[in-house]
Amino acid sequence: MSKTDSEQRFRLVFEPSGQDTLVPSGILLLDGATSAGLTIDTPCGGQGRCGRCLVRVEKGKVSNPNNPHLTQEQLVQGWVLSCQARVDGDAVIHVPPKKELQEIVTHTAATKVAVPLTCGFAFEPVVQRVSLELSPPKLGDNAADLERFQRALQDKIRVKQVDVSLPLLKNLASVLRDLDWQIDVTVYLPDGGYKAELIDLLPRRIKAPLLGAAVDIGTTNVVANLVDLRNGKVLGGSSARNKQVLRGEDVISRIIYSQRPGGLEELHSLVVETINAVLSELVQQQNRSASEIQEMVVAGNTTMTHLLLGLPPKHIREEPYVPTASHVPVVRARELGLAVNPLAPVHALPSVAAYVGGDITAGVLSSCLFKSNRLTLFLDVGTNGEIVLGNSDWMITSACSAGPAFEGAGVRHGMRAITGAIQEVRVNSSTLEPTIQVIGDAAPHGICGSGMISALAEMFLNGILSRAGRIDRSKIGKSSRIRMGELGAEYVLAWAKESANGEDIVITDVDINNLVRTKAAIYAAITLMLKRVGISLSDIEEVLIGGAFGQHINVEHAIQIGLLPDLPWDRFHFLGNTSLSGAYNALVSRQARALADEIVNKLTYLELIADSAFMDEFTAALFLPHTRIEDFPSVQPR
Amino acid sequence: MSKTDSEQRFRLVFEPSGQDTLVPSGILLLDGATSAGLTIDTPCGGQGRCGRCLVRVEKGKVSNPNNPHLTQEQLVQGWVLSCQARVDGDAVIHVPPKKELQEIVTHTAATKVAVPLTCGFAFEPVVQRVSLELSPPKLGDNAADLERFQRALQDKIRVKQVDVSLPLLKNLASVLRDLDWQIDVTVYLPDGGYKAELIDLLPRRIKAPLLGAAVDIGTTNVVANLVDLRNGKVLGGSSARNKQVLRGEDVISRIIYSQRPGGLEELHSLVVETINAVLSELVQQQNRSASEIQEMVVAGNTTMTHLLLGLPPKHIREEPYVPTASHVPVVRARELGLAVNPLAPVHALPSVAAYVGGDITAGVLSSCLFKSNRLTLFLDVGTNGEIVLGNSDWMITSACSAGPAFEGAGVRHGMRAITGAIQEVRVNSSTLEPTIQVIGDAAPHGICGSGMISALAEMFLNGILSRAGRIDRSKIGKSSRIRMGELGAEYVLAWAKESANGEDIVITDVDINNLVRTKAAIYAAITLMLKRVGISLSDIEEVLIGGAFGQHINVEHAIQIGLLPDLPWDRFHFLGNTSLSGAYNALVSRQARALADEIVNKLTYLELIADSAFMDEFTAALFLPHTRIEDFPSVQPR
Repeated sequence: MSKTDSEQRFRLVFEPSGQDTLVPSGILLLDGATSAGLTIDTPCGGQGRCGRCLVRVEKGKVSNPNNPHLTQEQLVQGWVLSCQARVDGDAVIHVPPKKELQEIVTHTAATKVAVPLTCGFAFEPVVQRVSLELSPPKLGDNAADLERFQRALQDKIRVKQVDVSLPLLKNLASVLRDLDWQIDVTVYLPDGGYKAELIDLLPRRIKAPLLGAAVDIGTTNVVANLVDLRNGKVLGGSSARNKQVLRGEDVISRIIYSQRPGGLEELHSLVVETINAVLSELVQQQNRSASEIQEMVVAGNTTMTHLLLGLPPKHIREEPYVPTASHVPVVRARELGLAVNPLAPVHALPSVAAYVGGDITAGVLSSCLFKSNRLTLFLDVGTNGEIVLGNSDWMITSACSAGPAFEGAGVRHGMRAITGAIQEVRVNSSTLEPTIQVIGDAAPHGICGSGMISALAEMFLNGILSRAGRIDRSKIGKSSRIRMGELGAEYVLAWAKESANGEDIVITDVDINNLVRTKAAIYAAITLMLKRVGISLSDIEEVLIGGAFGQHINVEHAIQIGLLPDLPWDRFHFLGNTSLSGAYNALVSRQARALADEIVNKLTYLELIADSAFMDEFTAALFLPHTRIEDFPSVQPR
Repeated sequence: MSKTDSEQRFRLVFEPSGQDTLVPSGILLLDGATSAGLTIDTPCGGQGRCGRCLVRVEKGKVSNPNNPHLTQEQLVQGWVLSCQARVDGDAVIHVPPKKELQEIVTHTAATKVAVPLTCGFAFEPVVQRVSLELSPPKLGDNAADLERFQRALQDKIRVKQVDVSLPLLKNLASVLRDLDWQIDVTVYLPDGGYKAELIDLLPRRIKAPLLGAAVDIGTTNVVANLVDLRNGKVLGGSSARNKQVLRGEDVISRIIYSQRPGGLEELHSLVVETINAVLSELVQQQNRSASEIQEMVVAGNTTMTHLLLGLPPKHIREEPYVPTASHVPVVRARELGLAVNPLAPVHALPSVAAYVGGDITAGVLSSCLFKSNRLTLFLDVGTNGEIVLGNSDWMITSACSAGPAFEGAGVRHGMRAITGAIQEVRVNSSTLEPTIQVIGDAAPHGICGSGMISALAEMFLNGILSRAGRIDRSKIGKSSRIRMGELGAEYVLAWAKESANGEDIVITDVDINNLVRTKAAIYAAITLMLKRVGISLSDIEEVLIGGAFGQHINVEHAIQIGLLPDLPWDRFHFLGNTSLSGAYNALVSRQARALADEIVNKLTYLELIADSAFMDEFTAALFLPHTRIEDFPSVQPR
């Protein structure tokens, strides 16, 4: 009897689609769903931590370990976490509609960032287009096509060596003859003079733009600019939710997911699909084809870069936190499955360390911090918080795991900063009633990062929150907004009747605890870094805030909860998506690209995880705004 | 109604296998056979020139253009050429058994050539194995794996740059940890000091040989040596019939075949399959795996090199005879489908011109002609004849299309130099009876190149052949051996009762005409080259003969028919397979490899096809031994 015959198999039916499958006993419902052709989001990577992969058992039997994410009521109704519950017999499983799936490709005007060439970099793309006229061969001058082509190109652009790879060499003879020995070619000049690598053969059509793409691969969003490499002009910008979000909301969850069988390949494919979708939209806007894109520069954190290349990120997560590569080699688009010219070079900006990636290198590059004569603090706060401190003489960098709370995960009604998200909260000091501002002026659906910062600050300043970050139990009942809920005390931001989803939108003690831990991690990292280099907060002359997160937050509120240091507001500058800007700079300027390497060499990395003092700083920052209230003079009087 | 429905389709059944297929009206029987899954040999590439793709129509109707290859008797019996006859109704087709198919992989002791490192080249392979011990990462020393690896390798072999391609980078983290940071690596050092490219990661196993392969890709045979790159030792040699022979016996036929739909891809696959089969046998002899082969150097004529790389050879055949590339780029084995280490560099020795290929470069390299102080004539006679004349100061080269007559094609009982081939003929001057010598002392099956030279010389010297290369009609009947056959006068070398195939083995006026044209082309090329550089035959101090052809021929007979110039026999040296020797030299010596490029630059190519004087020389050489009998003083008295 074969092994297969001896195993008991059960039938799973998934409603409402009716998709079914036969599976062996004991497998996860999540895997059963995959085998039936369904995709269930697992923002925490299937660790049972986020509680987002809920399904309901309609009929049949599953084994279901206890999980704090499930309320008693949910358990009674048959809800289980599909990443934890295992098949124990035939079953019918209800999969709730994915509210967020339609958001996967979201385009907002804000993503159309026309990034300028900053910091005085010289415009000089490493990919160029050259027009050639070859003399046709004849008896007495019948050198081979390749040698004839190399000679013509060398005459034109003065390089010592011309490399032509096999796919183009196969077409060279027919293209040269079809075009009557007059062609345009795109060449990649990796070293600025010695070598040229042919990457495309084109008919003569001088007027078409020479397309390049700058891509910011964020943990949450992928943003790209389409650029004309002839002049550096940004032709368009677009963004999409990183499809990897389905497989983990933060880098740690994705690293865990990558260790599942096939997980790495899946994450790699998901980010490639996302990039292809963004680029497809961009080229369509220009009536061009993606295969015309001749070069790509990407910036992403170390894990994103690993996943794009298909490199295992496992050791990024394990002490001593070692990536496979900081300077990843330039690869060709075809090696990754990108839908651009298969021979287009794909250059990833180099990382500094496991948790300080190419996005931060890009930030330092495009913010001009590396040449600033003022002591500058650069912050990029997303799912992770990365910090750079320094000026043109020295730079130090560190990172902390901030967690995805400000991005909507681990918060009961948390959501991303899209239409329906509460982005600003004001609390009336006498009635304790909130006034909310919702993105798109829509009915509220949940609360996004800036809304959380705002809510925390207002609740704290109005005494609803204690300095320890707990809802004051004595306030319960003083207003109908403050009450005990299923998960402890909570404050109601919007009533069910006003909300888009027909339920009360609340912020709970558990949410607040998550948010406070996040802000504490960031602030602790800042203070510890300053301490290590013997610099006091007030010495900081400029605070540059990059990342999508930085575009929406209210500085005053952020200071009030102790997320940002208490400095005069005019020292803060919001730079927008510095990762994208850095990628753009490296795309159009050889000088900027070379400088990115120098920046990485110059940045001293401070490992906070290895520093026992970090835990002390973190604990001290768990208060609102901070244990050392004297560090927040602007907040103290209130 | 769809297009398919509107087309009339007929059933073809192929006997004896019974394979059948439905085909549209009008397609070639050859293509019908392919569609039924049969392979029919087409040595001339399907031009209807060689008459080797005979099939017999048992039942049904085909349209069959007249073809001089078919005798009246054959036509009556239903024989047609499958490359010419077209389907005109349902039919049953008899495909005769392929006598020669079992010969496709032939191994002979003679192919195990232990080629020495000649001409004083320094032993220095460009692929080397290096043992590394890396310090494991720890907090405070947690550089990325790639950077750690690059540092360790640079410390060990003093290169400026270490390139690691994506496939290896994906495995780097796990391999380093699995092997506890102690590994052997193979590196490719293309430029002798600046750059190292990683091509394999290995566990420590100092004793295994470091495998490389030198391959001669002949139009007819592929011969390879397996080499230990640690010391240059030849571990084994093997050969196989180039499977492309099924698709054309000479380069012209293959070029024509390559222009059919899918033809180029098929020819590419056939030579790759052949090389893989040869290498598979070689590694099995050593109890190793083909994937351990870390580098390959190939030498072949320009068309063979094109077909190996999948480059279209079309323009090699058309005036002004332009290859796609003379110096083809180094490619990786995976780009070609070779079953060795996918990242192994594959280096092809450079060509000089459309008809002077890497095999000739290899010949000049391994024969030391380039450093000789004696005026040397180098001949490589196969399907084409290539000639180099010169010494250490200057070299001139040319080529002529000799045709495959000496290799058995275009000759009624022609065959390759394998068991059953008549390789030597002596004719009794009084009885005119022949004495034959057969390879393997077997019953004769046909006659190979050396046998043809020998037969021609003996028939000529004994008056059976006129100086014009025709069987003397007055001799017919003087001996039963000399008679009129279907295709004109013929001489019987073996009677049906002695032969292996039960038919008289003859050499006909048509055969003789083909052979005389072949020898005339070679001799005309030699004389015209000498004339162009103002050198007389007697000035030639040494004649080096390379190629498999050169190993078997009898110098005396070759001079007697005017194939080789009439020089003292001690000036002739047979070097065996100089193409393979050259590939071996380039495999184990960076110096030799560099010299191959210099040789190509130094060789002046003389285009004989463009030279109107060639036709005069050719016409003059159509006599036996030559119109200018005074150029053959040793033959004149006889």
